[in-house]
Amino acid sequence: MFPGTRESIDRDAAEYVIIGAPLDVSTSFLPGTRFGPDRIRQFARPFDDYDRRTDLHFSACGVIDQGNVRAWDDATEYLEWLNGELTAIIRDDALPVLLGGEHTITRAGVDAVMPDVFVCLDAHLDLRQTYDGNTNSHATVTHHISKIDTIEEILIIGARTGTETEWERATAADVTIVSPTDLTAGFDVTTWIGDRSSYISVDIDAVDPGFAPGTGTPEPGGITPQDARETVRAAASSAVGFDIVEVTDRDDGQTASLAGKLVRDFIYTHYAAKT
Amino acid sequence: MFPGTRESIDRDAAEYVIIGAPLDVSTSFLPGTRFGPDRIRQFARPFDDYDRRTDLHFSACGVIDQGNVRAWDDATEYLEWLNGELTAIIRDDALPVLLGGEHTITRAGVDAVMPDVFVCLDAHLDLRQTYDGNTNSHATVTHHISKIDTIEEILIIGARTGTETEWERATAADVTIVSPTDLTAGFDVTTWIGDRSSYISVDIDAVDPGFAPGTGTPEPGGITPQDARETVRAAASSAVGFDIVEVTDRDDGQTASLAGKLVRDFIYTHYAAKT
Amino acid sequence: MFPGTRESIDRDAAEYVIIGAPLDVSTSFLPGTRFGPDRIRQFARPFDDYDRRTDLHFSACGVIDQGNVRAWDDATEYLEWLNGELTAIIRDDALPVLLGGEHTITRAGVDAVMPDVFVCLDAHLDLRQTYDGNTNSHATVTHHISKIDTIEEILIIGARTGTETEWERATAADVTIVSPTDLTAGFDVTTWIGDRSSYISVDIDAVDPGFAPGTGTPEPGGITPQDARETVRAAASSAVGFDIVEVTDRDDGQTASLAGKLVRDFIYTHYAAKT
Amino acid sequence: MFPGTRESIDRDAAEYVIIGAPLDVSTSFLPGTRFGPDRIRQFARPFDDYDRRTDLHFSACGVIDQGNVRAWDDATEYLEWLNGELTAIIRDDALPVLLGGEHTITRAGVDAVMPDVFVCLDAHLDLRQTYDGNTNSHATVTHHISKIDTIEEILIIGARTGTETEWERATAADVTIVSPTDLTAGFDVTTWIGDRSSYISVDIDAVDPGFAPGTGTPEPGGITPQDARETVRAAASSAVGFDIVEVTDRDDGQTASLAGKLVRDFIYTHYAAKT
Amino acid sequence: MFPGTRESIDRDAAEYVIIGAPLDVSTSFLPGTRFGPDRIRQFARPFDDYDRRTDLHFSACGVIDQGNVRAWDDATEYLEWLNGELTAIIRDDALPVLLGGEHTITRAGVDAVMPDVFVCLDAHLDLRQTYDGNTNSHATVTHHISKIDTIEEILIIGARTGTETEWERATAADVTIVSPTDLTAGFDVTTWIGDRSSYISVDIDAVDPGFAPGTGTPEPGGITPQDARETVRAAASSAVGFDIVEVTDRDDGQTASLAGKLVRDFIYTHYAAKT
Amino acid sequence: MFPGTRESIDRDAAEYVIIGAPLDVSTSFLPGTRFGPDRIRQFARPFDDYDRRTDLHFSACGVIDQGNVRAWDDATEYLEWLNGELTAIIRDDALPVLLGGEHTITRAGVDAVMPDVFVCLDAHLDLRQTYDGNTNSHATVTHHISKIDTIEEILIIGARTGTETEWERATAADVTIVSPTDLTAGFDVTTWIGDRSSYISVDIDAVDPGFAPGTGTPEPGGITPQDARETVRAAASSAVGFDIVEVTDRDDGQTASLAGKLVRDFIYTHYAAKT
Ligand SMILES: [Mn+2]
Ligand SMILES: [Mn+2]
Ligand SMILES: [Mn+2]
Ligand SMILES: [Mn+2]
Ligand SMILES: [Mn+2]
Ligand SMILES: [Mn+2]
Ligand SMILES: [Mn+2]
Ligand SMILES: [Mn+2]
Ligand SMILES: [Mn+2]
Ligand SMILES: [Mn+2]
Ligand SMILES: [Mn+2]
Ligand SMILES: [Mn+2]
Repeated sequence: MFPGTRESIDRDAAEYVIIGAPLDVSTSFLPGTRFGPDRIRQFARPFDDYDRRTDLHFSACGVIDQGNVRAWDDATEYLEWLNGELTAIIRDDALPVLLGGEHTITRAGVDAVMPDVFVCLDAHLDLRQTYDGNTNSHATVTHHISKIDTIEEILIIGARTGTETEWERATAADVTIVSPTDLTAGFDVTTWIGDRSSYISVDIDAVDPGFAPGTGTPEPGGITPQDARETVRAAASSAVGFDIVEVTDRDDGQTASLAGKLVRDFIYTHYAAKT
Repeated sequence: MFPGTRESIDRDAAEYVIIGAPLDVSTSFLPGTRFGPDRIRQFARPFDDYDRRTDLHFSACGVIDQGNVRAWDDATEYLEWLNGELTAIIRDDALPVLLGGEHTITRAGVDAVMPDVFVCLDAHLDLRQTYDGNTNSHATVTHHISKIDTIEEILIIGARTGTETEWERATAADVTIVSPTDLTAGFDVTTWIGDRSSYISVDIDAVDPGFAPGTGTPEPGGITPQDARETVRAAASSAVGFDIVEVTDRDDGQTASLAGKLVRDFIYTHYAAKT
Repeated sequence: MFPGTRESIDRDAAEYVIIGAPLDVSTSFLPGTRFGPDRIRQFARPFDDYDRRTDLHFSACGVIDQGNVRAWDDATEYLEWLNGELTAIIRDDALPVLLGGEHTITRAGVDAVMPDVFVCLDAHLDLRQTYDGNTNSHATVTHHISKIDTIEEILIIGARTGTETEWERATAADVTIVSPTDLTAGFDVTTWIGDRSSYISVDIDAVDPGFAPGTGTPEPGGITPQDARETVRAAASSAVGFDIVEVTDRDDGQTASLAGKLVRDFIYTHYAAKT
Repeated sequence: MFPGTRESIDRDAAEYVIIGAPLDVSTSFLPGTRFGPDRIRQFARPFDDYDRRTDLHFSACGVIDQGNVRAWDDATEYLEWLNGELTAIIRDDALPVLLGGEHTITRAGVDAVMPDVFVCLDAHLDLRQTYDGNTNSHATVTHHISKIDTIEEILIIGARTGTETEWERATAADVTIVSPTDLTAGFDVTTWIGDRSSYISVDIDAVDPGFAPGTGTPEPGGITPQDARETVRAAASSAVGFDIVEVTDRDDGQTASLAGKLVRDFIYTHYAAKT
Repeated sequence: MFPGTRESIDRDAAEYVIIGAPLDVSTSFLPGTRFGPDRIRQFARPFDDYDRRTDLHFSACGVIDQGNVRAWDDATEYLEWLNGELTAIIRDDALPVLLGGEHTITRAGVDAVMPDVFVCLDAHLDLRQTYDGNTNSHATVTHHISKIDTIEEILIIGARTGTETEWERATAADVTIVSPTDLTAGFDVTTWIGDRSSYISVDIDAVDPGFAPGTGTPEPGGITPQDARETVRAAASSAVGFDIVEVTDRDDGQTASLAGKLVRDFIYTHYAAKT
Repeated sequence: MFPGTRESIDRDAAEYVIIGAPLDVSTSFLPGTRFGPDRIRQFARPFDDYDRRTDLHFSACGVIDQGNVRAWDDATEYLEWLNGELTAIIRDDALPVLLGGEHTITRAGVDAVMPDVFVCLDAHLDLRQTYDGNTNSHATVTHHISKIDTIEEILIIGARTGTETEWERATAADVTIVSPTDLTAGFDVTTWIGDRSSYISVDIDAVDPGFAPGTGTPEPGGITPQDARETVRAAASSAVGFDIVEVTDRDDGQTASLAGKLVRDFIYTHYAAKT
């Protein structure tokens, strides 16, 4: 269990439900996202329950950990199953917090929460229509999300690579790209979101592999952990869903540690905003 | 390239064609078979070209290395493509030597060479009809092979685990199970094969994880490296196809080193027998 | 959870209760036994539910996994707490299966189940009265157990090192030492136990570090995984308690894989004997 | 030996005495601080003897390395013993440079040198009165130091987490907290110290785990290596004692490399200031 | 092969020839530069072919990968052989892109391309005349290059350590040192180069070991990956030769990933400038 | 220091002098023998001082540890220097115990002690006259030793690979090859030695890489740790010099642990025989 959470038995009382989705089937380079959810939970163990900034205790934020939805190798079927789980969470008036697993799982999350905008931290555009003949690969996830009815606009923060076709797609009005340099220069995510509801998806490869090497497709030139944290905090209050994906076990734990901290930053900030 | 081989340009003159098949999509526990072929080549580097037992130089056995057939996540399509590559090798009168990749790839190998018997070293029966809803998983490979027209009998050496249904299937007349204990006790693979043509498939997890931890589904209680070597040597002269599968990069290299040595033992023995 | 178990909610119906005791305070050389229980569970994932030898399904043996009893750095207090947990399990007529953690925890186990004899697989005698001034170190555990009232005799299998004082202690009538060589030569643990009740403790360092490097105090010259397995099977039916200890995460998983398999071998054999 | 030092035989002539204190008993999450001192020495090997900034050769700064004070699992007894060693160093008019080991050891250092102020780089407040029932845990070290007679004030740089009680304690007049952001914004440690004597303690987890993952309780959101270095340089001339703690071996060496460099930066700067 | 390149058969049409030089004989601290070239190729696999900044596809830049020039332990002989290979590349009007291997190999590169200036990113001055009695060590490479006839000036970016003699040598008119701080402060490499032809050598240890731990002689206090990238881009158009050296396999891949990206940044920028 | 030894100051009283020779220049495949001596010392830490078989305490056998003779990259010069150190040890009537480092260093050992026979455990014949143009490579060491005046005969135990020329050389009367199979079958090293003085050299790659993966040129098909131990014990009493070489740090410690144990077995047995 994620430290500071209660078991899923108490779900009625939950404000947030953590759920692991260890899908690892289309990870194109370095596999291991199947170990992501448990590794994030493990590296969250040393964190203090209390957060000075928000003056909150994590264990008092109403978070439960429902464990992992065991994955198999048919991503499309898995997303349906996962979507069912997430929909049930939303019916219980809780906000789902997904721990990936490959980025593909985000589609189930967005489908379930139906936000106005999709705020994504990612090195990659993920706007392909197909990858290696697979229409449901991690590299197509933002493309699919752009077609979900409720989605008005998409924001991709930390983006720095894609195919020529993806970059052309990204010039359309519904997509805003914030490069790592733009972010450092002060891009204001809060203003961009406005009063719209958001789904926040953190592909950990948005962060530079010098800080977060434990990921499936490392891409140098990324954002700093600090910028990732500030972005999550700035967007948090608008969120109706959250995930963090593409964490593997192929490093010394620094990637999972950062991921666990971003989960905490999200929940503290979201909870503080609504109370 | 596998040390001691020439490049694929010379394929007409080849007796053996090494080909990597880095499929890693249904690996159920520890991923990394995608790195198997290159890791086997790497750990074969320190081996001497000369083999005292057969008085042969590896570089004089007519082996070429055709590189890897890049894998994607549709195993069924991939097997078809791989089968095409292997069929072309056979048309050139060469014997294919496949480096996996997950065990699933063996189906393409057996399909291509059409042997009388299938000789498999494996901890697992791999006789499932489906695994997690996937009819083309590594855990179903021997089931599929048992249905190939030319296959008269199947021998599974080192087998020690399976579902109840698999074990029942294994009691049929066309399947012979040799446990690690039976093998140590002196099971004679040469006699079992007789004058039939064979395809030899080495799932490296047949060997105990104490010796070969770098594999997808480690299963304690396995055979020794020595027994694996003697089995390969005993079966080699009958073979029309050979593979070694399920090697990952999650160890200190001992698994790939053993795999590379078994490839060499196979080729030395087969070549010595026919010349 | 250990694969094939149910959650602890069903404890009334349980035959076996798995419980993790991640104590890691007196580990003298290589730390990491705190990760032992979870790592054993992880590497047990790929095991089939069905066991051919006993014709049993693990999930039908009535095993529940109660999770870990979180450890802190006062070993003496921790043993008391753990003893309470184990006593509750016994009151529920279930057999406790402890996953260590350092060997020190075994004292709580033996105290709780009150067996006639203590059957220990260990490279070390663990008969010190104190180690570095600590009277409750892993190196003193068998000494303490020898003083428990119910204990008639102690058997240490795989033992190969100790202080001169420990070896002298081991010459007393209540201690029998079986060296790795003696074990290979055919020592009969079943006869030694007779019709007495036993507690079986597997310090994984009994096995040679060539097979099981992930342990706190590696000692070359050990028993084989096969001998460990046969010993566990031979002793199982007499057991009223079982543990496996000193597994760390500092290897490629082969140590945890073996440990998980020995847990399974124990339960299959014990369950088959009583049904 | 730390490169560039002489052996302890020459202690009379020493200006600085390096001493390892590999205590690793209350490390709450990732163990391995027992390997810290030797790993720091190892990764200091490639450093040049000459420092351009101060125009000094390290081997001419009068540094000896007295080796490690072997640790055992009774932290309280160990601190007494260590305090004796450190007191002897001070009597010889040398400045002790401690290599940890868990942070707990700092108490022995401050006790021995009796500074006016305690300058600590740490992610954690370490102001607990007890941790898991242990009054002498690494998480209580700054609390204990705050009670030492000579200590007027405490400065904690890089601090970003603690319990609510610790944060309340930190609001008292004798504690100053400098967050990572405050430090980047230009907090002036030299001014804060004034003309008082200091003990500098570097808990390496003050640095972000992206740069220094090899530590016992990684906490994202930390200071940069550059800020750590500038802080050490700014405080150095006031110091009468120095330590660096919480380095483990669970990374690729970057943490020990940074620690070794900070030791060097401290000694160069301190020596340059007094000559 | 480096992803996006063709095989060396097409060398006539090549604009750039990648060539690996896995020399690893004088690596003084952490060995493994012998695995550098293949590891850089491996971690370049997930990069997209298309580069948004330059609007170029890597596979359309005319790059071939000639594989590795197998190294042995006589560095002087090896450099001669390598120089021959590089000279042949230049005769074919292609620009050599060397993947090291230890820094020593750069001498062969500069000798072959005869540039006006040498632009080096390095933590070390490498201006020794001899190291451990070896006049052809990685620590002497810039010294040797300073004596090559065509070389007018030398620029060492990221330099922060050397012997006193090296620093004195560095005060001569033909050497310019840019410290990490100077670089951040805006040193303009384009202006420094002017209209002269350059050879760019990236010793990856110029980058801080927090970002790039997989190198032979880690030296804290380095430049950021971003500064490395901007420097390579700024210098690229002047280059007649390029190398990246001192990458090992002793990390989680972040060092090779960065190195592969710098190779790509160099080629994109150089190609864009000339077309 | 190797545990149980005293420092070199007491050399007059020493029976055995341990000396590290971390040469790592011609290691052809996996580097890291430079870390061999310190790693062997580290993994010997958990061993008990007392040995039951010989009834001896290691600390009472008169062993001192003189530390390492720092290596550089000119192997020929280094061997001369090392030979001087070893000759000094012999003049003091002590037996040198060398910890490698690559096998090349054995030449210095044999040169210094002038034995009648050379008893070598090795996977490789090491009878090349040159390797990659280097006449002083690890692969030539037994060739050089065969030319030393005092050497009557050479015994190579565990040998299983070499060039055709080496195998021919090995058919000469002065060389006896004992394959791993021959050893298991009961080859009697004591009889072979007779009353001649021997130098024992243990190239750890004689042992199968399944047990000892941390070595420079792993070669499957090796001897067991038990056979290595029995061989060392059988030969020990005749020895006037001993070394263990080719241990690297690229594993989980099992290789260094075995090496440290063989050093201990050698000294216990040798000391017991002479007293
Ligand atoms: Mn993504
Ligand atoms: Mn991404
Ligand atoms: Mn299989
Ligand atoms: Mn298998
Ligand atoms: Mn024990
Ligand atoms: Mn033990
Ligand atoms: Mn602290
Ligand atoms: Mn801390
Ligand atoms: Mn350099
Ligand atoms: Mn450098
Ligand atoms: Mn050798
Ligand atoms: Mn060898």
